Amino acid sequence: MKNCTRIFAALALLALMAPAAPAWAQEEDGYELWLRYRPVREAGVVTRHARSIVAPANPSPTVRAAVAELRRGVKGMTGREPGAATRPGAGTIVLGTPATLPAALVPAGMAALGPEGYVVHSAAGGITVIAANSDTGLLYGAFAWLRAASTGAALAGLAQRSAPKLQLRVLNHWDNLDRTVERGYAGESIWNWWALPDVRDRRYVDYARANASLGINGTVLNNVNSKPEILTAPWLAKAAALADVLRPYGIRVYLSARFSTPLELKETATADPLAPEVAAWWRAKADEIYRVIPDFGGFLVKANSEGQPGPQDYRRSHADGANMLAAAVAPHGGVVMWRAFVYAAENPVDRAMQAYDEFKPLDGKFAANVLVQVKNGPIDFQPREPFHPLFGAMPATPLMMEFQVTKEYLGYATHLAYLGTMFEETLRADTERSPGGLTVAQVVEGAQGRPGRPTGMAGVANIGSERTWSGSHFDQANWYAYGRLAWDPQASSRAIAREWAAQTFTREPRALDGIVAMMMDSREAVVNYMTPLGLHHIMGTGHHHGPAPWVADLERPDWNPVYYHKAGRDGIGFDRTAAGSNALAQYAPSLARKYADPRTTPEPLLLWFHHLPWDYPMPSGRTLWAELANRYDQGVAQAQALRAQWTALRPYIDARRHEDVATLLDVQVREAQWWRDACLAYFQSVSGRPLPPGVKAPPLPLERYKALQFPYAPGRG
Amino acid sequence: MKNCTRIFAALALLALMAPAAPAWAQEEDGYELWLRYRPVREAGVVTRHARSIVAPANPSPTVRAAVAELRRGVKGMTGREPGAATRPGAGTIVLGTPATLPAALVPAGMAALGPEGYVVHSAAGGITVIAANSDTGLLYGAFAWLRAASTGAALAGLAQRSAPKLQLRVLNHWDNLDRTVERGYAGESIWNWWALPDVRDRRYVDYARANASLGINGTVLNNVNSKPEILTAPWLAKAAALADVLRPYGIRVYLSARFSTPLELKETATADPLAPEVAAWWRAKADEIYRVIPDFGGFLVKANSEGQPGPQDYRRSHADGANMLAAAVAPHGGVVMWRAFVYAAENPVDRAMQAYDEFKPLDGKFAANVLVQVKNGPIDFQPREPFHPLFGAMPATPLMMEFQVTKEYLGYATHLAYLGTMFEETLRADTERSPGGLTVAQVVEGAQGRPGRPTGMAGVANIGSERTWSGSHFDQANWYAYGRLAWDPQASSRAIAREWAAQTFTREPRALDGIVAMMMDSREAVVNYMTPLGLHHIMGTGHHHGPAPWVADLERPDWNPVYYHKAGRDGIGFDRTAAGSNALAQYAPSLARKYADPRTTPEPLLLWFHHLPWDYPMPSGRTLWAELANRYDQGVAQAQALRAQWTALRPYIDARRHEDVATLLDVQVREAQWWRDACLAYFQSVSGRPLPPGVKAPPLPLERYKALQFPYAPGRG
Repeated sequence: MKNCTRIFAALALLALMAPAAPAWAQEEDGYELWLRYRPVREAGVVTRHARSIVAPANPSPTVRAAVAELRRGVKGMTGREPGAATRPGAGTIVLGTPATLPAALVPAGMAALGPEGYVVHSAAGGITVIAANSDTGLLYGAFAWLRAASTGAALAGLAQRSAPKLQLRVLNHWDNLDRTVERGYAGESIWNWWALPDVRDRRYVDYARANASLGINGTVLNNVNSKPEILTAPWLAKAAALADVLRPYGIRVYLSARFSTPLELKETATADPLAPEVAAWWRAKADEIYRVIPDFGGFLVKANSEGQPGPQDYRRSHADGANMLAAAVAPHGGVVMWRAFVYAAENPVDRAMQAYDEFKPLDGKFAANVLVQVKNGPIDFQPREPFHPLFGAMPATPLMMEFQVTKEYLGYATHLAYLGTMFEETLRADTERSPGGLTVAQVVEGAQGRPGRPTGMAGVANIGSERTWSGSHFDQANWYAYGRLAWDPQASSRAIAREWAAQTFTREPRALDGIVAMMMDSREAVVNYMTPLGLHHIMGTGHHHGPAPWVADLERPDWNPVYYHKAGRDGIGFDRTAAGSNALAQYAPSLARKYADPRTTPEPLLLWFHHLPWDYPMPSGRTLWAELANRYDQGVAQAQALRAQWTALRPYIDARRHEDVATLLDVQVREAQWWRDACLAYFQSVSGRPLPPGVKAPPLPLERYKALQFPYAPGRG
Repeated sequence: MKNCTRIFAALALLALMAPAAPAWAQEEDGYELWLRYRPVREAGVVTRHARSIVAPANPSPTVRAAVAELRRGVKGMTGREPGAATRPGAGTIVLGTPATLPAALVPAGMAALGPEGYVVHSAAGGITVIAANSDTGLLYGAFAWLRAASTGAALAGLAQRSAPKLQLRVLNHWDNLDRTVERGYAGESIWNWWALPDVRDRRYVDYARANASLGINGTVLNNVNSKPEILTAPWLAKAAALADVLRPYGIRVYLSARFSTPLELKETATADPLAPEVAAWWRAKADEIYRVIPDFGGFLVKANSEGQPGPQDYRRSHADGANMLAAAVAPHGGVVMWRAFVYAAENPVDRAMQAYDEFKPLDGKFAANVLVQVKNGPIDFQPREPFHPLFGAMPATPLMMEFQVTKEYLGYATHLAYLGTMFEETLRADTERSPGGLTVAQVVEGAQGRPGRPTGMAGVANIGSERTWSGSHFDQANWYAYGRLAWDPQASSRAIAREWAAQTFTREPRALDGIVAMMMDSREAVVNYMTPLGLHHIMGTGHHHGPAPWVADLERPDWNPVYYHKAGRDGIGFDRTAAGSNALAQYAPSLARKYADPRTTPEPLLLWFHHLPWDYPMPSGRTLWAELANRYDQGVAQAQALRAQWTALRPYIDARRHEDVATLLDVQVREAQWWRDACLAYFQSVSGRPLPPGVKAPPLPLERYKALQFPYAPGRG
């Protein structure tokens, strides 16, 4: 017993002396995202498979990051940190490329994995092999193994093989140099520009880890509404410091470039892309950038849109502008991501048509290292849009998908709206540009293009300085889903939701079922209480918070909600058939034919394509007016259901995060009701009809809803 | 040994099953401030004194907060959480008021403690008594006991008795409704206005705990440059939610009121304070506020200063304006804090004189519940100023001290500058308004006023959303020192520094000596490399970052640095003697006489009061020009010394915080050099003199320093 006492005393002392858990930080605050590595039931199994790690000799920073992550993860799940081993054996995880692995452990078919794919498999003798053709692939493989372990996969029989279907998997930060974030609802920018390059916030490393765990391999640091200063030496030094932090995690830095930069810096007399001095300036600037960021990814450009300068200021085309910049970065292996979101000073017949009208004629005219970055739908990140007609219509141009992960139009970070289903809806849409079908995902994957052209997906980040990163616990799922879909655009949003929830909240199956059910329903709830049946862009002016379908006094017609819903005595909806704007003609003929007839138009897009009388008979048997009211009511009921489902999940969720989510769901229920009440009050007033039978009257007169103002709404940037 | 194995296994299991320390949060990141409660050497002693806690029956939220803090603290220091006990005994901490304590345990002289004071003493039988006349006093006493325990005081012989010398100990948040912070260098506002009142961030509770630990009992939530919306119902609901969170911690909420609020909200036709409709509006508004915040503290007002509206817009006096607002809150027990920082549209002879000129004639004209809030010096929070001449000059008016805790002019959150010494310098200054001496601290404590008039101190907060709260680890010390000096304006800045460092970093005596030495030197270093010998306001325009003594082209003379230093061929300095602006006459005659002669003017204030030739002989034997250069060099050397001292402290400081501080000290050394180089280059150019012998030439030509721009500097609000 003497020894025992001694051991006991030593343990007690150890417990006291160990770096104590910070007293204030014991609750889960969401900072750890989906990389929480909490103790698992199968701790023994995990330990057995991860007693030690065999890494290549002279490991690169990337390999060191992979090993560190495995150690951190196994320690968190089991309490025991794996050691280092020099040779494979039972209970070892062996990381290596074909060049470093023992020949017997090199999996077959490595070449097919490409530069970033990985294999994670259980080899004979209790060895787990993580193999890839690059160190970044090994890092991705390490995260894949950790994902498997923390979601309870059978570690004894792993046979994972995965390679990204897109080359550029990029976050777009709409972060300004003063640290505000346009459409940011999660605090200020995580980039502390002022303190850079001296201060390298540890948060940057955790940002890199989270992205690497999803396979995100690029980040555009600054807002597409860019400033000239970002390309000056002091700011390039800041960007270079970030690039240094992110590089070991396989993440390249990109910058948004303002087209008129040299002119505004007074270093050229024009910004005309065909002026030799302008091209020379950009070449020299690219050289300067690559001197401080050798793996700089390239430029993202918003040109001739919403007041931004661009080549059209000089009667040059988007291709002229993009190609000039592309020539500057081409010698260094960089790309130009040129946005198709154009929104010119002149009033188009139909704003939805403008990108197609301007870009379709340029198909084939872009340099080989240009991607045209196209938003998922033709307007602007609405709760629901049809896929953008450019997808499938520019076979000779690499089209990059742009999704908005931050919820500008879907309730900020307040409303629970899982966007995985929305992204999936767009990606799985059939453009009908090929006899056998051609989904948007296939277009983005380069099915149409010449082999070797770049492919990519961009996600407008929902990441900020708040402790939760994304402004709420559930908004982390949208970052996660974006990353997983950028890796595999044909992945299942339901599987992604389950995988995320298991890592983020709990693996308890009943709880998981409940969380996933909430997530899968949530975006449709938002569509119903905000913009059902194909309505769009009826949000508050500028900040886009809350309903404002009545706004009709803004300078440009297409700034006004009334432009988009066109509700009046006669009916509601935007006629985009041949009788109207004929935006339909921008789609494949088979699709255009289907959408030309309201009876063959999918109900969710009905009022996007058609202006219909209030009495139009819907498939449900209701009139359009009754159906609309019904959808608004349904949206409110769905929001209430989310709230009730979450209450039922209380036993499974840690108290703090349960309360955090519950608080926001209360707001969501209230705001869903507000949306429903305000929209029905308004549409009733313009239709001149009584509310359909059984539909409750809004509690306030319309004027009260119209009077609401939100002068300090976030995200104005 | 069987038992032993079982115990061992049980311990191991416990270790595994215990709520794991969040994997990402094991390093010290500064969030816990000085309330870290880490394991102490004397864990056994602490445990012996705090086995259990006896609290009054039916404890209020404030008492519950006190007990929770004691539990948290003892658990952190010893690993063992005290239990609850119902009767005093050995090893109990007994909290109570005279009404709830057993008579034998009521300390003598309780009445003298007032409503907020406390006694912490060791009674017979191993009992520790925390006694106070209010629950807030008990909370303060609990924090005092924890401070004693965590700094290693002898717990067996405690006999602490303390009561605040000022009634209002208030933070001023210059936080805007859009969550930016004017002069904020620690991220955005901690008030997430958008999410309030629904979301009550847990950070608000930690903010309250930190403030209560210092005795801070009020907080002005919004910027003195206020907006009308703050007084509308939606924002009052947000303020009320914060008040609910802060109330248990003895903290009252105040609001900055824009003088023209009713006019701007279009609810009155004027903002004239003598118009009955205006007074009625404010009375009704006060009633409305007190309905939702029953213990609302009152209004802070910046009027007729820097473009803010005020009573002078209607040819009324500051007293007219303040008294009208005071009448509105008086029925509810509220106060008005009326700022003396006036800076009118007309050009004064000497900006330093304006507050005195406007306010001195109003002495005795303010209502009983008005405090005039006076900045520490007559200009604007410079690295060094003489005390404000209003202190001691308005005996019939309660003067509230306004210190700036955020370092607008002392290097933001980047430079290490402990402000305790600066606050102490002002507080201990003798106004010479009384034969026996009358320090500024005594004035603020109400030595001149009628008994019963309010007293107070305001600190412009350096608190933001960043994890460190204050933008750096050492800036937390300025929050701490402000709070401790608001409790006792005659406290020692050195003792405060030591107390803070012992709780924040380490109790190791050698390390403590080193940290305190750094802190005590740091502000003088900043004075030397920025504004030695009484120079002031030569910072960059607007953002106040870096040197810009050359700026001479701003619209108003007193916006320009050249106005303040008046350097030319003939010499340098602002003549505030009778031959100049005669600002001296605003001080007590004896002081004015002393400062009238450069030979009897304290060297640190020399150029504040005198314009002197470059060859003026200094006490050191050097010419003024050589002395000035010497001081700039000395400042750089001091900054370098801070850096070196910190390196020597590495063995004693946790790695992360050591690196955090070291990084900033590197910046400070670089920026000290920049200040020195740019100022010497400029003063050389205007003096037309060669650099004094032995003084190194600045490495760049003056134009290069002048060309530096900082377009996205933080804190512009």
